[in-house]
Amino acid sequence: MTIAQQDVLALTGGVGGAKLALGLADMLAPGQLHALVNTGDDFTHLGLHISPDIDTLLYTLSGRANATLGWGLEGETWQTMAGLEALGAQTWFRLGDTDMATHLWRTQQLKAGTRLSACTTELASLLGVTSHVFPMSDDPVQTTVHTGAGDLPFQHYFVRDQCEPVVSGFSFDGISAARPNREVMRRLQQKAYGRVIICPSNPFVSIDPILQLPGLWMALRNSPAPVYVVSPIVGGKALKGPAAKMMNELGMDVSALGVARHYCARYPGLIDCFVIDQGDATMAQAIRDLGVEVALTSTVMKSRADKRELARFMLDLGGS
Amino acid sequence: MTIAQQDVLALTGGVGGAKLALGLADMLAPGQLHALVNTGDDFTHLGLHISPDIDTLLYTLSGRANATLGWGLEGETWQTMAGLEALGAQTWFRLGDTDMATHLWRTQQLKAGTRLSACTTELASLLGVTSHVFPMSDDPVQTTVHTGAGDLPFQHYFVRDQCEPVVSGFSFDGISAARPNREVMRRLQQKAYGRVIICPSNPFVSIDPILQLPGLWMALRNSPAPVYVVSPIVGGKALKGPAAKMMNELGMDVSALGVARHYCARYPGLIDCFVIDQGDATMAQAIRDLGVEVALTSTVMKSRADKRELARFMLDLGGS
Repeated sequence: MTIAQQDVLALTGGVGGAKLALGLADMLAPGQLHALVNTGDDFTHLGLHISPDIDTLLYTLSGRANATLGWGLEGETWQTMAGLEALGAQTWFRLGDTDMATHLWRTQQLKAGTRLSACTTELASLLGVTSHVFPMSDDPVQTTVHTGAGDLPFQHYFVRDQCEPVVSGFSFDGISAARPNREVMRRLQQKAYGRVIICPSNPFVSIDPILQLPGLWMALRNSPAPVYVVSPIVGGKALKGPAAKMMNELGMDVSALGVARHYCARYPGLIDCFVIDQGDATMAQAIRDLGVEVALTSTVMKSRADKRELARFMLDLGGS
Repeated sequence: MTIAQQDVLALTGGVGGAKLALGLADMLAPGQLHALVNTGDDFTHLGLHISPDIDTLLYTLSGRANATLGWGLEGETWQTMAGLEALGAQTWFRLGDTDMATHLWRTQQLKAGTRLSACTTELASLLGVTSHVFPMSDDPVQTTVHTGAGDLPFQHYFVRDQCEPVVSGFSFDGISAARPNREVMRRLQQKAYGRVIICPSNPFVSIDPILQLPGLWMALRNSPAPVYVVSPIVGGKALKGPAAKMMNELGMDVSALGVARHYCARYPGLIDCFVIDQGDATMAQAIRDLGVEVALTSTVMKSRADKRELARFMLDLGGS
């Protein structure tokens, strides 16, 4: 366990970000990690409310994540999917039989008027997760991916079309009316966080929806807690998912520098330190020239030890 | 195959009635059996529209029924239920993983505005069922069981409370506004049915909801097709389910005679012939005294051959 005196706020999407979140949870005292999770990927499918990033985080933090698939639950079965396939129903979004319980449960709770944040807190408790997991908002925000094949809801782009369409931009429907998670906003006002860590998640579809919630990024910037970002791009490639492909299609430099430029241009003054992989050391100066500090470490997390190492690095950053 | 020249209409609830329906389907040419199925047991559970009797019929007729359990699907798994149990959700109504696909599929179809009858026709087709399966109505009818423990929705009485509360009566909420299945009504007007068979289902909670739909039993009485009933009570016991217990609690004679009295009193002139088990021969005259014919045969269906035998008997009744 590290020497963190104050709670840590981590902004995260799904799989990539959940790796660092797991490392952070391992290194902090129970309850010290507060994860603010993207819900722009949430959608209604087969009549069920699906929150993919929240579930990935909860399953990862509770030790239930399927290491082989990279999503869903360990030891999952697929009988309902087989049944739906036999009925000619849509099966491109795979819902495992045990995972299905989560969706049925949450959909019922939401229908009964429970807020997504309250559902998430209860689900975390039921799964034995001691970290605090907060949806970025209780209000619906829908990430739309603008592509050469038309505008696609995120999961259609990501899962159904396997990120194949060429991307030209993104929009987050509903975001201007969405209020950021009130618990996180309250704690930011109370200066309760010792540091803010932006996980190595996709900048465009995982982190931007969070930061662009009205008032959120300014609250982070105005908070005394330093904001650290881990680059999701290492050696010109995304550690996970379509970030590199998107950057290329958007005409950006596919590199940690490209990511740093994106964050610095969109959220001026927000980032205190940009953490890049040692292999990307040559671009450190160019990033510093954007007005942020740079720290180098090994950012590729394969083993549980890797996750803890990077977490420790992030928690030691800037001195204790 | 028998000599039936015209289509046969069978009124049925779930398990008990489905046995005879299967025998009838075996003995008739494909498409000749028209089953009009109780939907008073339908309910919304975990956000899903469940039609237990329709599913029992479709699973039985398609050879998928679980012979051991007496309900649900053969080879079923229960992962979602285990997941829901871990989340502290209601699990008294057991939904198997493959069965779940049916409920998800139908709930989606209904939400999209498809009528229950159209859903059922498509589901039957997808499952390879050649018989026509009609929900008694596309409009919602809710069977309520009045008991010493208060008024209970049917599935709460039947499944959750395992038929333990003492019954004092029944009501079918919504029935006065519910229109009987229009296809069956049309065929009755066209005199398309050669005979009508009331299966050995529960008279109070499976057959009464069907017969009490506005205009239905009078249409059956006015149709030239004879109406035959198979008694669900044999030797003072129900072949399946709580019919005998209900009759006892309602102060009725727990016998085929009691069932005959019920049908003759509620639907005067409807029944042409009442079919009872040979073991109940002593009450034949008392039933005839109610003004209906009586036929005796073996009505207990254990094997597939038993079902076919009783079906053949029902199809031969009254001459060809």
